[in-house]
Amino acid sequence: MPAVSSGSSSDPAPVPAVDAGPAESAATGEPAAAVAPVSDPVSGPRRGRPGYDQQTVLNVAVDVFNRHGYEATSMGILAENLGITKSAIYHHVTSKGDLLRLALDHALDGLEAVLDDPRASSGAADARLEFVLRGTIEVLTERLPFVTLLLRLRGNTEIERSALARRREFDHRVAGLVDAARSEGSVRSDIDPRTTTRLLFGTINSIVEWYRPGGPLPAEKLADNIITMVFDGLHTRRA
Amino acid sequence: MPAVSSGSSSDPAPVPAVDAGPAESAATGEPAAAVAPVSDPVSGPRRGRPGYDQQTVLNVAVDVFNRHGYEATSMGILAENLGITKSAIYHHVTSKGDLLRLALDHALDGLEAVLDDPRASSGAADARLEFVLRGTIEVLTERLPFVTLLLRLRGNTEIERSALARRREFDHRVAGLVDAARSEGSVRSDIDPRTTTRLLFGTINSIVEWYRPGGPLPAEKLADNIITMVFDGLHTRRA
Repeated sequence: MPAVSSGSSSDPAPVPAVDAGPAESAATGEPAAAVAPVSDPVSGPRRGRPGYDQQTVLNVAVDVFNRHGYEATSMGILAENLGITKSAIYHHVTSKGDLLRLALDHALDGLEAVLDDPRASSGAADARLEFVLRGTIEVLTERLPFVTLLLRLRGNTEIERSALARRREFDHRVAGLVDAARSEGSVRSDIDPRTTTRLLFGTINSIVEWYRPGGPLPAEKLADNIITMVFDGLHTRRA
Repeated sequence: MPAVSSGSSSDPAPVPAVDAGPAESAATGEPAAAVAPVSDPVSGPRRGRPGYDQQTVLNVAVDVFNRHGYEATSMGILAENLGITKSAIYHHVTSKGDLLRLALDHALDGLEAVLDDPRASSGAADARLEFVLRGTIEVLTERLPFVTLLLRLRGNTEIERSALARRREFDHRVAGLVDAARSEGSVRSDIDPRTTTRLLFGTINSIVEWYRPGGPLPAEKLADNIITMVFDGLHTRRA
């Protein structure tokens, strides 16, 4: 069952360089998104110490949350990882919960933008479903640490529960597309639609455990591979 | 991406009843295993307080490890969950690490038994691969909490690193089967075999996040559904 990558997901991820832009664009070098761009989680002008902006603080925080767990991470640990003082962090955000909320919004805004794209709501259900799955994979690879954080949520705080509710709603809307593709006759009906949806998300979400942006497998090729496996299967076609 | 079940994986799992047998057989009520039976992790006669045996202690410990994390679990927390004293636990095991080792052995012994079955090594590679994937799904559903623990390992201790090494070796052997099926021409060659193996395991392993033994979806049907999706794809065949 495994598939432990040589760099296991528990290995400390490299901390993004100071002043690197949003991790995703720097990390993948992928061509223009198929999905409408989502507003940056940072709004307003830069604040705080020169060389740091809220996005950099957020990138480092998400990395630390993923390595140590949100609850086990203190503002002191974050300050240490950023190489700045705790009070310097408060130039950028009001609390640890604020960082969590911004990070989860970044993941969820990206996912919801896929469903809000007109290509998710017009045309054959089959094509809409494929568009949404490709868009989801793109968000996962571009915002990998942010989606990883979302996927590991325990629902212990109001911020987490609110994010989980948005995640469920996303799930529900994709399940609707699976249903539509089934009714249309393009997706097989011998698998329960709930199971189909869970297996689709299971396959896609599992990439956070091993996919490394900037590695040998481009995100677009990964998306092609997943779409091929889940829709056409791994078996070669017999004549 | 989500697929948050109504009972999310972070919900406290029910604690097995005292003197329930190994969790898996009680939990699934599935017919005889396709996989050769693996020796029970408990060897030797019962020890300790009447009404408890080592397997019961192990079942509860794995449940608590999965809910709180292995590191955050103390022998005191375990004793509380078992309703016995710490010293009573030491009638059954020598340490917390001993419980972890027994639990991981239970998961890994099951997985390795699939590969050691003669059906994994004779016949067409395609059929061998399907046998191994079905067997893996069966072990996952029958030993769900044990495999969940294995999949969440961080590799912080020697016991964990040793289990991760066995997991990698299992992975490596299955990757060999994927290669063989590819060479044989039964599995498509337009997806890199490493990616194929990772997607297969990603799909299968993701069931620990939502599958509930004893629920509406029998384990055997789940296995059929997964095998259908990954080998034949979700698309209906066009004439």
